[in-house]
Order: sequence, then structure tokens, then C-alpha cells
Amino acid sequence: MAKAPKANAVVGQSGGPTGVINASLVGVIEEARKHPEIEHLYGAVHAVAGMVKDDFVDLGKLPADTLEVVAASPSSAIATSRDKPDRDYCAKILEVFKKRNIRYFFYIGGNDSANTAHILNTMADEMNFDICSFHIPKTVDNDLLITDHCPGFGTAAKFEACALMGDDLDNRALPGVKIDVIMGRHAGFLTASSVLGRQRDDDGPHLVYVPERPISMDKFLGDVQGVLKKLGRCVVAVSEGICDADGVTWAKKLAEQAEVDAHGNIQLSGTGALADFLAGEVKSKLDVKRVRADTFGYLQRSFAGIQSAVDVDEARRCGREAVKLAMEHDNGSVAIRRTGNGANYAVELFRTELKNVAEKTKSMPDEFINAQGNGITDAFVEYAMPLVGELPRTEYLGNYPRV
Amino acid sequence: MAKAPKANAVVGQSGGPTGVINASLVGVIEEARKHPEIEHLYGAVHAVAGMVKDDFVDLGKLPADTLEVVAASPSSAIATSRDKPDRDYCAKILEVFKKRNIRYFFYIGGNDSANTAHILNTMADEMNFDICSFHIPKTVDNDLLITDHCPGFGTAAKFEACALMGDDLDNRALPGVKIDVIMGRHAGFLTASSVLGRQRDDDGPHLVYVPERPISMDKFLGDVQGVLKKLGRCVVAVSEGICDADGVTWAKKLAEQAEVDAHGNIQLSGTGALADFLAGEVKSKLDVKRVRADTFGYLQRSFAGIQSAVDVDEARRCGREAVKLAMEHDNGSVAIRRTGNGANYAVELFRTELKNVAEKTKSMPDEFINAQGNGITDAFVEYAMPLVGELPRTEYLGNYPRV
Repeated sequence: MAKAPKANAVVGQSGGPTGVINASLVGVIEEARKHPEIEHLYGAVHAVAGMVKDDFVDLGKLPADTLEVVAASPSSAIATSRDKPDRDYCAKILEVFKKRNIRYFFYIGGNDSANTAHILNTMADEMNFDICSFHIPKTVDNDLLITDHCPGFGTAAKFEACALMGDDLDNRALPGVKIDVIMGRHAGFLTASSVLGRQRDDDGPHLVYVPERPISMDKFLGDVQGVLKKLGRCVVAVSEGICDADGVTWAKKLAEQAEVDAHGNIQLSGTGALADFLAGEVKSKLDVKRVRADTFGYLQRSFAGIQSAVDVDEARRCGREAVKLAMEHDNGSVAIRRTGNGANYAVELFRTELKNVAEKTKSMPDEFINAQGNGITDAFVEYAMPLVGELPRTEYLGNYPRV
Repeated sequence: MAKAPKANAVVGQSGGPTGVINASLVGVIEEARKHPEIEHLYGAVHAVAGMVKDDFVDLGKLPADTLEVVAASPSSAIATSRDKPDRDYCAKILEVFKKRNIRYFFYIGGNDSANTAHILNTMADEMNFDICSFHIPKTVDNDLLITDHCPGFGTAAKFEACALMGDDLDNRALPGVKIDVIMGRHAGFLTASSVLGRQRDDDGPHLVYVPERPISMDKFLGDVQGVLKKLGRCVVAVSEGICDADGVTWAKKLAEQAEVDAHGNIQLSGTGALADFLAGEVKSKLDVKRVRADTFGYLQRSFAGIQSAVDVDEARRCGREAVKLAMEHDNGSVAIRRTGNGANYAVELFRTELKNVAEKTKSMPDEFINAQGNGITDAFVEYAMPLVGELPRTEYLGNYPRV
């Protein structure tokens, strides 16, 4: 489009919720109000599923104090969907857009959402029905390309840091082996964040396994044994997506085993299966009495009241930026560029092409993972700490000098 | 003892850590400094296990700023133990006490710890070695007798409230059945706390099951089906200690290799088996596509940075009170009496006999559980809210009027 048309706009929230996806929603809402080109701003309830069913709420008149509560709320305030629209699905959405004169489309989500925005934009072009189609990045996994990091990651990373800080102190108080299974099917950023709260040399997690580095059971048990020998205890952070040495995820191997053992009552394919399996291996093969395992589950993306202030601010700015960009461009994805780090941490936002983000994922760079493939480097800590913000300090007295 | 002797003191932290057990420790430390009767204050590393091994740190000279960080740290700063001392064990402890001229014993813990304090006090009497033996209440389960509520509960209850607030919003965003398994072997207080963050009429958890009410699988599935029919989704909070209609815990039925600790407790936390089993039953027997389950595990008692301010304050006061009482009494347990509620919430502390608290547990009063045995009453909310303090507000827009 040569010029931003006067028309209606729709915003949707796609995929798994995060702690700050609503801050991006509020960013879109508050910026849209500044632009007379946008007449009505509709919220698609359950994302594309709402768009295809013509199911919208009006986001234009929400009071300012409500917006602040929305921005502070975890999860997706206008609900989300796991639908992955094909061309037929998109054609139906475009019919609804035409009917409602929706010419601005803002989609907050991961790489699938960028792809949806891309398909919709391309199909609308083919139909000579020009729309502005913008993707606003969101994921707890931090696995989007181009952007330095992804809104939603900082808050989830803060959860992991606070969880492991407490869990490590718990393990000091009642020593043994503790295994924590953390979200992340393909990218290890969240699991790596478990190290961010470490304050003493012997603080855990002492071993960290990410999907980027296959790990055999022998190596895993040897690593745990080594830490036990040195410290008398061991805290392990494991990505749910870790692979065996043959590249197959352990979760998949367990699921296959569950089919073989289908006569049993307990489902091995359940959410706690990987944690329980790893704990069982340690308990049966190493000489250690106390072995416990937790799977952090959905708390990681939805726990209330634990937002990272930096993450909220950036998520909101990304929402605003998408609307600003839509006044001058047909389409795009908002990305973050880091312009300073440490005490001088700062970012600027920029536009990238939808196709650069759509359907692609980023893994942890090699420099963030130690040579042994069982720990996280200082380079990661420097990268991630500014996104998480200040963490609680803790004190442990049990290693003070004896009297 | 007729008069408080000039002697040394020891403090220990027993049983499972909590979010505020260190605040009680700091209360003991700061009050002990005010009393010249207490010459040295030793911290027993790993509780009775440290006492029997003569393994102590000096708590007398910690700087004020360190004490504040200790008070804010989760878990047990001088480490803990699950040992349950018998008379032989206690005799060895008393030898160490004699050697070090320890005449004041402060023990922060649950009913087992009150019992240990009771045994030590009685045995010391028999040996004509007078000691002051004080129990300071601590449990996340809130299951101690006499006291209105227990330090440690408020902070854990806040965790449950924040967890379910987010989890319910997550379930709105991606509807289905979500089952959360919460700590509590015999008492349902923590599981009941999952309701404290509810803000809208249809907020979850929609079903709450506590150990005090046996529940058959048929009734459970019927309940879930009913909520699904009404709301199209269902969030369930379940105590790890829930029983089948025959009074046997479901966890026990599932536990093929149940690990039993020294107190005869079956290990319930640190395994996802119950959650996975319940999710499997719902998935296979009800017509619902999306079923998820989480077991909150050790995060509930150790997550960093989530203390309830009221809980911290009361825990610290209980620590101070024990030292004050020890100047005038031989033994006792510190208890909390509620003197005002709601906006006028206030408490006073008082002394009760060790035997009143030792080895006994409290269950949820009937008035806190609904008639159907699947929900929590307003009476519980009135009881628990002041202990948790202010919770985050949330907003959900997906049920706003459609346009």
C-alpha cells in the first residue's frame, strides 16, 4: 500500500502464553489509539480460531487502569490457539477481514505466527485486498531468528533463576540428587537460565543439559557421580528436549517404551515421565540415598506476579512499534537489537521481513555451552542477566567456619 | 530451673525447609543478643544430626545486613535433617550439650521437632542437667495444633495462589482439563490456598480435593465432566495425599517402589506419578482433547523471592518470643493467637506445652470444605487471606462482550 488506509485493525495472541504477551497486546492497543488511520481495534478471541469464526472483542475503549492490569497479567488476555492455518483457513480469515474492513493485522507469537502473518499478507496481495500484516515476537523459548532475544524469555528465565536458587538451597539443607526438568524442546535458553541465580562457587545447578548437546545415560550418570563425590550433593537442570547420543530425544524413547508397557496403570508419556525416569536411573545405578525430581511444567510460563521489568517494557515497546511500522510498511516482524550490555544495557527495535522469522528456529550459540556439554558459560550469563533484572540475594550459613 | 542460667544456646532447623524458617532463625539470633544469660549462640548444622556430631557454626557475630539476607532467603540456612531421634540419640546430644555448657535449646520445626524438644527436656531433667527447651513452629502444611496458623504456611499459600492464578488464565487461553497436584499429606490447607487468587466468578480452580475428604474415581470424573459441560474447561487442584473412597491414598496405590523416610512417610513430592495417573484417567474416560497435569513439587516450599510479608514478620516474632520465654520458663512451644481478622488482622504470641504440639497433627476444619467435598468455602478464604497478603490483580478480556 502506498499510504496507510483508514480501516479497522485486528490483534491476536498465538501459541503458548507467556508472562508478557499481554504487555505486547497493550502496546498495540495504546499505539493504535494515536493513529486515526485505525478506526476500530478488534481482539481476535482465540487468535486465528476467532478470526475465522468472526469472534472479536472491542479493544478500543478499555480504560487506562484496566490496560495496566492487562499488561501485568500472565497468559493471553484474549486467549490463544494452536491452529496452524493453511491457505483454505487463511482464505476464510480474509473473507472476515473484508467483511469488517480489517486492513491491519497484528499477530503476537512465535515463528508459526510470523508464518501465518506472511501467508495472510501474500494471499491478500493475490486477492488485491491489501493488508498490513505485522508479527510481534513472543516466546518463552527465545528461539526466534534475527531478534537479539524474544519478549517472554526474560520473565520465564527469571522464574527458572528463582526456582533454582531456592531449589539449590533446599538441596543444601537436605542433600542428595535433585533433577529439574525445564521447558525447551529444541533450544536450551530457558534451561540455561537456571544458572542465573548462582551466588556462591558451589551453588547449583551443578550440571545443565540442553537439547543442543546429545548426552548418553553413561555420561549423565558419570557427571552426577563426579559432582556427588566433590560436593556430596548434586542439582541438575535438564531440558525437556534433551537427546540421547543417537540424537533421539529421551522423551520420545520413553513414550515408545510406554507403548510396549501398555498393560501398566501409570502412563509413561505423562508430563512427569522424563524427570521420574532420570531420578530412577540415578537411584538404581548410583550410591545415593536421596533422589528427587521435579518437572516445572506450565508454571514456567504463567506464574503470576513474577514479571521481569525489562521484559515487560520491551514487550510493550514491540507492540507499539508494530503499529508505528504499519503506518509506513506493508508487513514485517519487529525485532530487537542490543545496543549496550551490562550496566549500559539498551536496545533499539527494527523491522525485519516476515520470511526471515517464519518457520525458523534459533538454537543456543556454541559459546553459551561449555566444552563438556554439561554446563553453561559466562557468555550466556552476560547475555541473559540484563533481560531478567535484579534477583533476590540469598545467604547460606551451613558452610561457615565451625566452632 | 528457678532462674535463667548464664550458659550457651543452640538453635536448629528441622524437617522440610520453608520460605520463612530463616526468619525464625534470625528472630532467635537477634533476641539472644539482648540477653546476657546467653553467652554463645550455636547453630546446629543439619539439626539434630549436627548436635549429635558436635557440628556447629557461631551465630553470635553475624552482621545486621547478613541477618536481613538470611531472613529473606528460602530453605534452611543452617541445613536440616529428617532424623527422628530416639532416647539413645538424645542421650548423645545431651552429652554434647554438657560438654559445651548448652542450656538453651531452640528448635524450629513441625510436630516431630516439638517431640524432640520434649524428649530432650525430659531426659535432661532425669539427668539433673536442666535445659530450657523451646519449639518454634514451622510447616508449609499448617498442620500444628494449638496455634491459629503456622509460620511457613502463608508464604507457601501465596505460591499456590499465584500459581493457580496464572494456571487458570493459561487454561482459559488454551482450554481443556488441567490438574495440579499440591503438597499436603494429611492436611488440605495448602491445596485449599489454590483458591485464594480467584477474582472472577468462573476463575479456577473449579474443583479442589483435600486429604480430609476421600474421593472415588467415579466421583472425580463426574465432577470434572460437570465443570467441562458448564465452562468448556476445568482446572483441578488436588492434594498429594488424597484418598480413594476406601481411605487409602491414591499415591500409595500407585507407588510400586514407594520410598519411605525415617518418619514412615511415603515420598509423595518429587514424583509426577499421581498427576500423570489422574490426567490419564480423564483423557481415557472423558470426551476432552486437551488434558495436562503438573506436580508443583519442591518449588512450593523453596521458590526464591515470594515471601508473604505477614508470614516473615510472624516467623521472626516467633523466633524472638521463644528466646524471651526461655528467660522465664523451662520449656514450651510458641503459638499464635489471632486477635483480629480481615482489615483488622492482628495476632499475639503465647506459650503452650510441648506435649500439646508434639506428634499431633491438625486437619482442615469441616467449615473450610464444601458439602460436596470438592471445593473450599469462604470461611477458609477469610482465614487464609491475611496470612498471604496482597496478591497480583489480573485481567482477562476473552469474556468481554463481542462486537
